[in-house]
Amino acid sequence: MALTIVILISIAALAFAGYLARWVLENDTGTERMQDIAGAIKEGAEAFLARQNASIARIGGAVAVLLFLLYWLVRPTNPHDPAGPFGLALATASSFAFGALCSGVAGYVGMFVSIRANLRTASAARTSLNTALQIALRGGAVSGLFVVSMSLLGVSGLFILFRAAGFPIKDIPFLIVGYGFGASLVALFAQLGGGIYTKAADVGADLVGKVEAGIPEDDPRNPAVIADLVGDNVGDCAGRGADLFESTAAENIGAMILGAVLVAKAPAGVSFSAGLLGVMLFPLVARAFGIVASVVGIMMVKCDENEDPMNALNRGYYVASGLAIVGFFIASHWLLAASGPGGASSAWFRFFLCGVIGVALSQAFVYITQYYTEYKYRPVKEIAEASQTGPATNILAGMAVGMECTALPVLVISIAIVTSYHLGEAAIPGAGLFGTAVATMGMLGTAAYILAMDTFGPITDNAGGITEMSGQPEETRVKTDRLDAVGNTTKALTKGYAIGSAALAAFLLFSAYLDEVRNYAPNLPMFHGTEAVINLGKPEIFVSGLLGAMLVLLFSALAVRAVQKAAYYVINDVRDQFRDKPGILAGTDKPNYARCVDIVTQGALREMIRPGLLAVLMPIVVGLVFKRFGVGAEAVASFLMVGTMAGILFATMLNNSGGAWDNAKKFIETGQYGGKGSDPHKAAVVGDTVGDPFKDTAGPSLHVLIKLLSTITLVMAPLFI
Amino acid sequence: MALTIVILISIAALAFAGYLARWVLENDTGTERMQDIAGAIKEGAEAFLARQNASIARIGGAVAVLLFLLYWLVRPTNPHDPAGPFGLALATASSFAFGALCSGVAGYVGMFVSIRANLRTASAARTSLNTALQIALRGGAVSGLFVVSMSLLGVSGLFILFRAAGFPIKDIPFLIVGYGFGASLVALFAQLGGGIYTKAADVGADLVGKVEAGIPEDDPRNPAVIADLVGDNVGDCAGRGADLFESTAAENIGAMILGAVLVAKAPAGVSFSAGLLGVMLFPLVARAFGIVASVVGIMMVKCDENEDPMNALNRGYYVASGLAIVGFFIASHWLLAASGPGGASSAWFRFFLCGVIGVALSQAFVYITQYYTEYKYRPVKEIAEASQTGPATNILAGMAVGMECTALPVLVISIAIVTSYHLGEAAIPGAGLFGTAVATMGMLGTAAYILAMDTFGPITDNAGGITEMSGQPEETRVKTDRLDAVGNTTKALTKGYAIGSAALAAFLLFSAYLDEVRNYAPNLPMFHGTEAVINLGKPEIFVSGLLGAMLVLLFSALAVRAVQKAAYYVINDVRDQFRDKPGILAGTDKPNYARCVDIVTQGALREMIRPGLLAVLMPIVVGLVFKRFGVGAEAVASFLMVGTMAGILFATMLNNSGGAWDNAKKFIETGQYGGKGSDPHKAAVVGDTVGDPFKDTAGPSLHVLIKLLSTITLVMAPLFI
Repeated sequence: MALTIVILISIAALAFAGYLARWVLENDTGTERMQDIAGAIKEGAEAFLARQNASIARIGGAVAVLLFLLYWLVRPTNPHDPAGPFGLALATASSFAFGALCSGVAGYVGMFVSIRANLRTASAARTSLNTALQIALRGGAVSGLFVVSMSLLGVSGLFILFRAAGFPIKDIPFLIVGYGFGASLVALFAQLGGGIYTKAADVGADLVGKVEAGIPEDDPRNPAVIADLVGDNVGDCAGRGADLFESTAAENIGAMILGAVLVAKAPAGVSFSAGLLGVMLFPLVARAFGIVASVVGIMMVKCDENEDPMNALNRGYYVASGLAIVGFFIASHWLLAASGPGGASSAWFRFFLCGVIGVALSQAFVYITQYYTEYKYRPVKEIAEASQTGPATNILAGMAVGMECTALPVLVISIAIVTSYHLGEAAIPGAGLFGTAVATMGMLGTAAYILAMDTFGPITDNAGGITEMSGQPEETRVKTDRLDAVGNTTKALTKGYAIGSAALAAFLLFSAYLDEVRNYAPNLPMFHGTEAVINLGKPEIFVSGLLGAMLVLLFSALAVRAVQKAAYYVINDVRDQFRDKPGILAGTDKPNYARCVDIVTQGALREMIRPGLLAVLMPIVVGLVFKRFGVGAEAVASFLMVGTMAGILFATMLNNSGGAWDNAKKFIETGQYGGKGSDPHKAAVVGDTVGDPFKDTAGPSLHVLIKLLSTITLVMAPLFI
Repeated sequence: MALTIVILISIAALAFAGYLARWVLENDTGTERMQDIAGAIKEGAEAFLARQNASIARIGGAVAVLLFLLYWLVRPTNPHDPAGPFGLALATASSFAFGALCSGVAGYVGMFVSIRANLRTASAARTSLNTALQIALRGGAVSGLFVVSMSLLGVSGLFILFRAAGFPIKDIPFLIVGYGFGASLVALFAQLGGGIYTKAADVGADLVGKVEAGIPEDDPRNPAVIADLVGDNVGDCAGRGADLFESTAAENIGAMILGAVLVAKAPAGVSFSAGLLGVMLFPLVARAFGIVASVVGIMMVKCDENEDPMNALNRGYYVASGLAIVGFFIASHWLLAASGPGGASSAWFRFFLCGVIGVALSQAFVYITQYYTEYKYRPVKEIAEASQTGPATNILAGMAVGMECTALPVLVISIAIVTSYHLGEAAIPGAGLFGTAVATMGMLGTAAYILAMDTFGPITDNAGGITEMSGQPEETRVKTDRLDAVGNTTKALTKGYAIGSAALAAFLLFSAYLDEVRNYAPNLPMFHGTEAVINLGKPEIFVSGLLGAMLVLLFSALAVRAVQKAAYYVINDVRDQFRDKPGILAGTDKPNYARCVDIVTQGALREMIRPGLLAVLMPIVVGLVFKRFGVGAEAVASFLMVGTMAGILFATMLNNSGGAWDNAKKFIETGQYGGKGSDPHKAAVVGDTVGDPFKDTAGPSLHVLIKLLSTITLVMAPLFI
């Protein structure tokens, strides 16, 4: 029954996404000039994605084979194994491949719609702000709904499959952890490749176009302008789609594992009326209800022609959050009702409260991110003020904001983790971790809505570019500029949300990892009774934690450097084009957009390999090295946990400082401190350029890195023992 | 006997420091103009230090009273207490006050000589590079010897005092932990205040002088120029002096605690020929031998007139390191010789090897820091190259270098910790931590030499300023410039060294903290048999680790912002002076240096309070909050450990990126990419300005923060149980 509902809702959501896509595509496609530009963007984005997917497929294929061989031949067998080595190897490797495929498809579909919605949004902006807003948001919703329901359908499909094959249901989540790993791996490379692409094109276009040649942003004479617009799609859309696909998939699997543990370890006399299956399916049902809530929220969004479109989006989000809470209430009451001694009979309500904490946490992240990245508030104003004394003080102010802005998110995450854990313990002794898992589900409940808002960003950004390049009247540009500004905000919010949910999900995946280790080696010294101990006081464990934190910094360094290197290719090409065809700058000759797109595609794909491999290999190396000291599993846990902490902090710092620099520049452009073209503005442009790879390459890649660490260690756990 | 040697060597070292000081002071004091400038620097530095010490004395006094009351009235008594509540309170509070006093005196003496050696170095540079080098290094050595021997004398003096009062010797280290805390607290405020002062003056002087008025650096027309030169003394000298004073004091106490544990917990049949006292005094003896090694190294330094002075300094350092190893060999053989089953009879040799690891680690840090901050190597060259495309790419390249450069130090620290731990375990089962402690002693063995090189930095920097401002001939300026460049390198090296030794010392202080907790509450659930467990898998422990890492970022944000705020005061004053007296810029009127010095003094002292209080209060708040969840002591341990990891990484990032930016600018000034005044140079100046508060305020303050966290938790431990 529960599974049926999940499948039905997922399929209905996919169908609804299809309906929305058709609705978007039926809108007017504007003038021929607009279509030309949009066509070039579409072509570039599709070419990039095709080549990126080919690269990822090669890497993924190699990993799948490796995984298969490791599980089949290297991994020690265990009396608790649900299947023989070959069967397990097959299950894990094919789950991995399936996860990778689904993640790739989700990213592709999101981009498919967004590179078509951009044109329609631009066209609609010529007449109505509301229609433009709706096209952009619904275009984004196609991606959001697709990602979340694909992830749900994938996990429940595999669940049905393995159940039909006769595996005990409590073991199934361990068989499908490969799904999460596959999704993570694709997400990592998609986010890295897309992130490098978008910022290399952006930085390259700006440095030669704006700074050297003195032409405005989005000017059609700039050979890199199409690459820049393509970048918004491949970086923000495809990348974040894969990121949240992975979050929801990993979280679903982790929560199912914890659900199985909850039922197995429940105190004597406590029984769940929906049984093991019901508890295990609770995360999927809660997520499915969340999709319904998001759909309602998305369809509610409309705005007056003179209203701030952000208000409309916020209203929709409140509705989605409220409905998600209702859905949680129903799901908890239905599937988590228990009977027995103590507070068991009211346990479902306490779990429901954990879900509410998750929803509240996502709201808190939205507020905090707004505070640190919008120019209504102190932090961005400080950066703008500091721009008066030049780029150096602008950078210092931005760095100070970036480092400071980690404090509140950490505080609210801390409160959420501890509170939901203790609520869980109060519900049923031993259910503390399940409590935090429910909070994670609460946070991810509105994932589809958040993702729709996120993809809204590149669509409106592109719409602005198309409007600018096709020479639309001032009136239209004002509309697309307003939408674009809102899009910048929603992109920043989504990143805050993604990192918050990654932090919560990580805590859940740690436990899954520890359960997995215990499954293989219940007699390891790290297990003291029911407690699994990751003892930072031991030198090996301290050191591996330090290495985990170091990975975060080294990975960020490689990501930032990758953008720089790829940007150089763009800069050189644009300079060459300007030199070879002087007519371009004069406006008499057309630049070769495709060549530039091609160059940045190659550059991004080349540069994504190093940071990607570092992220994949380092946890494995740490595990294998410390295995020699007899503490492989524990060292990996410490590596994972401290790495996650560092990742949360660093990603927050990079995302928000980047967002703040961006908006400090925009604030000055509203006429403050001399406005556009003044010295403070030039200083602010420097900050904005520095912030670009922070917020769009390194920061978002760190979200994925955190989750990849969790899923890779989960899958590789047997090797570290 | 051992104690007598320690006391004698310490007193001899102080006497020798006195001799060096006299030698320095007897050198020629140059022209009247030079004396005027040096006089202004001296006056400003002394005024700042007097006011800073008054501020710190107020804060320290309040903390001492609080500590006394807490130990007397709040702290739960314990059957293992070496004294009653009042006696313990008195011992702890007076050790604290004594530590604070010694740290203050050490900082003061170092600065006393350096603000006199600067003038003599400048004067000597008119005739001989070698004499100038020797004056600067020996001036620095006064500070280095004073710091290290004061710290040694303080610890051994307290040891003698408490022993005479009849306390059992194994308990004495716990009675004098207050000494380390007092030293840390003073170091924190000294480093913060000095660091804010120096960079506020520097940034302020540069922004108005170089950028707005277009006058060169160190130009006497700039009203902030004296403040800038004062800053070098109060930031680098007094600050780093207090920092390393604290390192050696904390490390001495921590190692004594571990020595006592080693003897108490030694396996049946293992006995040390030098007894408990011998083992406990080993750290002090090894340190005393290290002082002798440093003295020989310092006196060896001389260079040809045409040689790179860095080579001379390196030669001296090799000699000091080599002799320190010899000293270690003697001390290990004498005090750590053991008899008994297993490998006990060769244990002393294994401990000696741990010491060698420490010496090797300090060498490794010196090399790594040079690689990342000198323009001979790839990283700085990359930044210089990126300056061609403007300040944004310069900043990005520098940030990438900063993040990347954490990798190698973490690797070598990891290897050193794990290897020395296992060597210790192989020597005597259970002596692993003592092994890491011995490695720490090895690393700190040459502390006096390193500190002499560090203080060499501000002396030569000042000498350059005095030479420039007093209008000396080109030939002299070339000499002081060469010394100044070497000084920049040595300052960077010392920071790398300080962070490395802080990392090792931290691991030792964790153990001391855990012993202290076990002493009060041996039945806490965190103790599993002989193992003390800090279990990151528990939500409260995970969360407190996350909070520890967050403290590092928030503290850095406040430190950077403090510089910005204090710099604003300077900027406004300089602008006012230029406006009120147009004759200043024309060269016909003298600026009011003293007013500027006064303003930046006030600003720095005001702005140091917030970050300082955050560092002191946050560990206490975390301990008290989590005490309510029954895991106060464990949560504080996690806070401390993860905070330390984050601190190591962040400090390395900030120090080295700052150093790399600085030298990228200097590289361009050698004529690369257009040389001085070109656009790439302007871009590099931006990076240098950003790097200034990174490397001279936030980074070094983080070293102190790490150790403060250790000592504060050690002293407050009873409150968290």
